[in-house]
Amino acid sequence: MGVHADVFGIRTKGENDILDITGNVADVVARSDLKDGIACVFVSGSTGAITTVEYEPGLLEDLPDALERLVPKGLTYQHHLRWHDGNGHSHVRASILGPGITLPFQNGQPVLGTWQQIVFIEMDVRGRDRQIHVQLVGE
Amino acid sequence: MGVHADVFGIRTKGENDILDITGNVADVVARSDLKDGIACVFVSGSTGAITTVEYEPGLLEDLPDALERLVPKGLTYQHHLRWHDGNGHSHVRASILGPGITLPFQNGQPVLGTWQQIVFIEMDVRGRDRQIHVQLVGE
Amino acid sequence: MGVHADVFGIRTKGENDILDITGNVADVVARSDLKDGIACVFVSGSTGAITTVEYEPGLLEDLPDALERLVPKGLTYQHHLRWHDGNGHSHVRASILGPGITLPFQNGQPVLGTWQQIVFIEMDVRGRDRQIHVQLVGE
Repeated sequence: MGVHADVFGIRTKGENDILDITGNVADVVARSDLKDGIACVFVSGSTGAITTVEYEPGLLEDLPDALERLVPKGLTYQHHLRWHDGNGHSHVRASILGPGITLPFQNGQPVLGTWQQIVFIEMDVRGRDRQIHVQLVGE
Repeated sequence: MGVHADVFGIRTKGENDILDITGNVADVVARSDLKDGIACVFVSGSTGAITTVEYEPGLLEDLPDALERLVPKGLTYQHHLRWHDGNGHSHVRASILGPGITLPFQNGQPVLGTWQQIVFIEMDVRGRDRQIHVQLVGE
Repeated sequence: MGVHADVFGIRTKGENDILDITGNVADVVARSDLKDGIACVFVSGSTGAITTVEYEPGLLEDLPDALERLVPKGLTYQHHLRWHDGNGHSHVRASILGPGITLPFQNGQPVLGTWQQIVFIEMDVRGRDRQIHVQLVGE
């Protein structure tokens, strides 16, 4: 039994950029000495989110469209009135989707469906350098 | 310390079928040699979600009603225009709720409130056979 | 390697009370013998949620405003028609946001961004005494 802590960096292009980070997570698991356990994939930051999705071009449009309907960019946000950074909606969206996911890994590989990828969604209004932590606990 | 990996199958009846899987998860914990730790409950697939809810008939209507208001089935989804499977809204709903939850277990039992059950929500437009993974790490 | 199980109590003032519990979680990690691993922060109860947010006054208004738009209090909920407790929307909101988050800890501290705090959001219509479980697995 052991813990394996790793982190990788990604650069996003701007709001609603959705990056497939499945390969990055799989690499961390493969590089570790652990075969079976739990992987926690987590972004340190309050304007990004991590979830799973079938990574295909249609949903890369549908998901941002839904986020815009759910938490519209054009409303007045108190966060913006205080800080003038135009990203109140980004914070709200990120809090609702959540900063990370936890998933099993077995035989040195993340457990995922064939059409299920781990994604980072940039909620902020500009491109950002993001640090994604992958923490493994297992044997 | 150790890892216990298990999986169980469920059959859903169709869209918005909400199944109480608390007993299945509790069985996995009870069958394992582990008494205390963390349980990761995860669906491999991109059109289902796992969360907790008070499992009573009212909320089994309220939750699908809310999902329909939040991510309506009748809108045009790019996913559907590409793949013609009519489940663009299913994918979006699943990504927002998330594919799994992680919870503590103590003394061989999941830690939950009295009126808090672990549920699988079928987001897809037809009944499906689902594999729910339960990965335990603990001692 | 080991497991550290802890719990702390908080008292909420009522609906949409958002409490910063980062310090509580950090204290649990610091008090344990574990330096690196995964922390599962989980509320046992079906009308509260845990996520991360930049804890500043603007977002403490924006997040409840968004929840009200997403899952309005004034609609008719089947849960209310059955149980007459006026909190159907609370249950739905809690299920969508989720009952817990899981995050890494390293060198005896939770891994978080500078402007990223762990919060408990009271979704119920009255103040409640809440038990927040923090379960650590690591070394």
